[in-house]
Amino acid sequence: MRTNYADDSLALHTDLYQINMAESYWADNMHNRKAVFELYFRKLPFGNGYAIFAGLERMLSYLKDFRFSETDITYLREEVGYKEDFLHYLKDIRFTGDMYAMVEGELVFANEPIVRIEAPLVEAQLIETALLNIVNYQTLIATKASRIKQIIPDDTAMEFGTRRAHEMDAAIWGTRAAVIGGFDSTSNVRAGKLFNIPVAGTHAHALVQAYKNDYDAFHSYARRHKDCVFLVDTYNTLKSGVPTAIKVAQELGDQINFIGVRLDSGDIAFLSKEARRMLDEAGFPNAKIIVSNDLDEYTILNLKAQGAKVDMWGIGTKLITAYDQPALGAVYKMVAIENENGEMCDTMKISANAEKVTTPGLKKLYRIIDRENGKAEGDYITLADEFPEREERIKMFHPVHTFISKFVTNFEARNLHEHVITNGEITYELPQLMTIRDYAHDNLSLLWDEYKRSLNPEEYPVDLSQKCWDNKMQNIAEVRQMVDQIDER
Amino acid sequence: MRTNYADDSLALHTDLYQINMAESYWADNMHNRKAVFELYFRKLPFGNGYAIFAGLERMLSYLKDFRFSETDITYLREEVGYKEDFLHYLKDIRFTGDMYAMVEGELVFANEPIVRIEAPLVEAQLIETALLNIVNYQTLIATKASRIKQIIPDDTAMEFGTRRAHEMDAAIWGTRAAVIGGFDSTSNVRAGKLFNIPVAGTHAHALVQAYKNDYDAFHSYARRHKDCVFLVDTYNTLKSGVPTAIKVAQELGDQINFIGVRLDSGDIAFLSKEARRMLDEAGFPNAKIIVSNDLDEYTILNLKAQGAKVDMWGIGTKLITAYDQPALGAVYKMVAIENENGEMCDTMKISANAEKVTTPGLKKLYRIIDRENGKAEGDYITLADEFPEREERIKMFHPVHTFISKFVTNFEARNLHEHVITNGEITYELPQLMTIRDYAHDNLSLLWDEYKRSLNPEEYPVDLSQKCWDNKMQNIAEVRQMVDQIDER
Repeated sequence: MRTNYADDSLALHTDLYQINMAESYWADNMHNRKAVFELYFRKLPFGNGYAIFAGLERMLSYLKDFRFSETDITYLREEVGYKEDFLHYLKDIRFTGDMYAMVEGELVFANEPIVRIEAPLVEAQLIETALLNIVNYQTLIATKASRIKQIIPDDTAMEFGTRRAHEMDAAIWGTRAAVIGGFDSTSNVRAGKLFNIPVAGTHAHALVQAYKNDYDAFHSYARRHKDCVFLVDTYNTLKSGVPTAIKVAQELGDQINFIGVRLDSGDIAFLSKEARRMLDEAGFPNAKIIVSNDLDEYTILNLKAQGAKVDMWGIGTKLITAYDQPALGAVYKMVAIENENGEMCDTMKISANAEKVTTPGLKKLYRIIDRENGKAEGDYITLADEFPEREERIKMFHPVHTFISKFVTNFEARNLHEHVITNGEITYELPQLMTIRDYAHDNLSLLWDEYKRSLNPEEYPVDLSQKCWDNKMQNIAEVRQMVDQIDER
Repeated sequence: MRTNYADDSLALHTDLYQINMAESYWADNMHNRKAVFELYFRKLPFGNGYAIFAGLERMLSYLKDFRFSETDITYLREEVGYKEDFLHYLKDIRFTGDMYAMVEGELVFANEPIVRIEAPLVEAQLIETALLNIVNYQTLIATKASRIKQIIPDDTAMEFGTRRAHEMDAAIWGTRAAVIGGFDSTSNVRAGKLFNIPVAGTHAHALVQAYKNDYDAFHSYARRHKDCVFLVDTYNTLKSGVPTAIKVAQELGDQINFIGVRLDSGDIAFLSKEARRMLDEAGFPNAKIIVSNDLDEYTILNLKAQGAKVDMWGIGTKLITAYDQPALGAVYKMVAIENENGEMCDTMKISANAEKVTTPGLKKLYRIIDRENGKAEGDYITLADEFPEREERIKMFHPVHTFISKFVTNFEARNLHEHVITNGEITYELPQLMTIRDYAHDNLSLLWDEYKRSLNPEEYPVDLSQKCWDNKMQNIAEVRQMVDQIDER
């Protein structure tokens, strides 16, 4: 039984501690100090050499509508016990800050800011959880889809995973992310409706069971559908399914477009080759073979190595759940905050886990592209007052192994951050989904092949400017000094 | 950019092929034939010895509201191209059938029907995808949560995973499922609001960064919050975080309830033991140690083996994404359908993959409980006209290795299916979430320990009655005969 509180806002779609901190900031009158937070992940998923960013549209609609509803306030008062003065304040909070973000379909790598929020501290804090929830999942799926699509660049890739998705939002936002990563269509009709994704699908085993045999089921299907794909594995693929599909296609001739047959079980390599032979011999060389059944980039690569004859791939579970790595670990960290005198001060978190140490300061992110060959030399993170687009030559060096460095000349420095929200107003026009997909696809040509290999790719450089590095070292020294003073007390 | 179609119904949250099949059924006037579908999974997740069913509440609300909205119909007409006669029919479809289901919190095993739908064919078909989407995810998470809770039966288990959940629905329905599996609280405030789950959380690193040091941050937190847990790893856990937490607790004395400290990075085994020692020495033996950081049942077991001193566990990523197996493979199969003479006929699907062969017929599911020791002897699947509750003695035998069998006497045969929807009306009162959690917890005492081991548990028997088995064999023979006839043509 659910409670009587209406599900009428997403403002409470956050961790409780965000609201606790908001209360402390507000009580100490620090809530309106300007703060800068960055959202990034520390490690690429699936051992891939790149990721594809998705999630901007959902973040923008979340931020635009951000407000605590009456029922939110009532719940916080009655069930959690916040005091009236703070609740009164919460009621009027809106997102009034600025958001800089990559556009969807952008190539993204570890340890570079995907999103930068500049906003009153309290607002920047309250939105953390939802932004991470959105970006982590959608970016993960766009990346997985791109990995799969790289194995089948010329075949059709269809997203079939709704039944195994993690509840309903994942099904629709996951399929949208899959399209950004290069997929062509989805079986989820709601996703088609909401995002204008082509929908795909024919019939299931139940149709054949309802009509008791392949023949009657295929004929029934063909009576109402001009384009026909017949599912051939309900009883016996090679003895019943494929021969019956051929027979029905021959009987109906021009009355239907016999698109092909679908296999959903058994040995796909063997069955697809046999089905191909039978279709060819029957005079249907253009009929397609469509397969599904727990596929991912690894199984597809193996099937292709065995000469499987497949034209269209329906990918479900392994894509929509990102089965081999179902979480991207993006985090959201404060890098600067206004002090009591109105000056911006860098801030950082030191950690016993070295990879969790943050890089302080308001930063910009550039992609450095060689003007001669059009390839990306690496990404380049600078402080706010640096302008590599005005430089002739920059030094790029590895942020961990700092002795690895190179000088780059004759480059384009492309700023990867769009100013998508300005003073709480959306100042970015969202492209059509298929435009985003094309953008993601074109972006891949920026990368040398060694970064695109699905197994053991080279590491793409994401480098700090000298100034950014020096600033980080100075901040670390200051924190160390503070800790040592506490220790000596 | 999204389309102009409003997201005002879940009827299109289905695979396209379901609608295609609905059209064929309708065109051939088969749509109102009564059909029986069963929902079940073929393999327990995580190598666990049992699963815990969750998802009933969400299914009931989906079925109650099932209808195609005006915008659904417009989309299907304009973008997918269905014809007007069929769309006219679709508009008035509601779910008018019957649903039998396990109640939430029930122990469930492989190959037994969790849900049975008896409805007009077209309705039973259209709802398949959404039911699977709901049950697969929620049951997966309830089971994962139960595995984790079994390792820490006396500690507090908190769900902290929203930022890594697969979009928003997964965060809230996943945390509800985690509670059914035995969790105590959640950090997601919206889940707390909607499902009346206790919410938990204190502050994050950002608070300490905003105040520049642990001391000011902890004091600020304590000014507005009576119950205080301090996060101690922002700069240095043992040199700054824990000593400062102790200092603030000593300074404030009775003004706060010093609940304890939270560790979120570093070596939890070492740090928790040191923190425990420091807290004890400072006179806070009752202060709790709360940890988080990529925990699951395996890491917790290891930490406990090393003597980690932890009282409360915040579990995020690994729980909410079911990280080590992020999909449950439940399916939904037709087992019987009305023929043209109004008689119910069994139906089945044969497959090249032996485990995909279905068990035909309208079936019932019983849990056989030994009256002497109160333990479950196994589950027992019968045809509709069998009543093991009236028998003195039943024979249970393994559905694959049929020579393994036993006779059972002095048992209670508990029917596991509630009649939750009758002629489209909900006829079941949903319990409070905490009642469901207690039910799940109590159910575990039905199982011998060998089924509850997290590694390599014994296989719990799920057996077919002799009649059910004979019926399956007869149906297989009939299908084989049909296929052979086609082959000989």
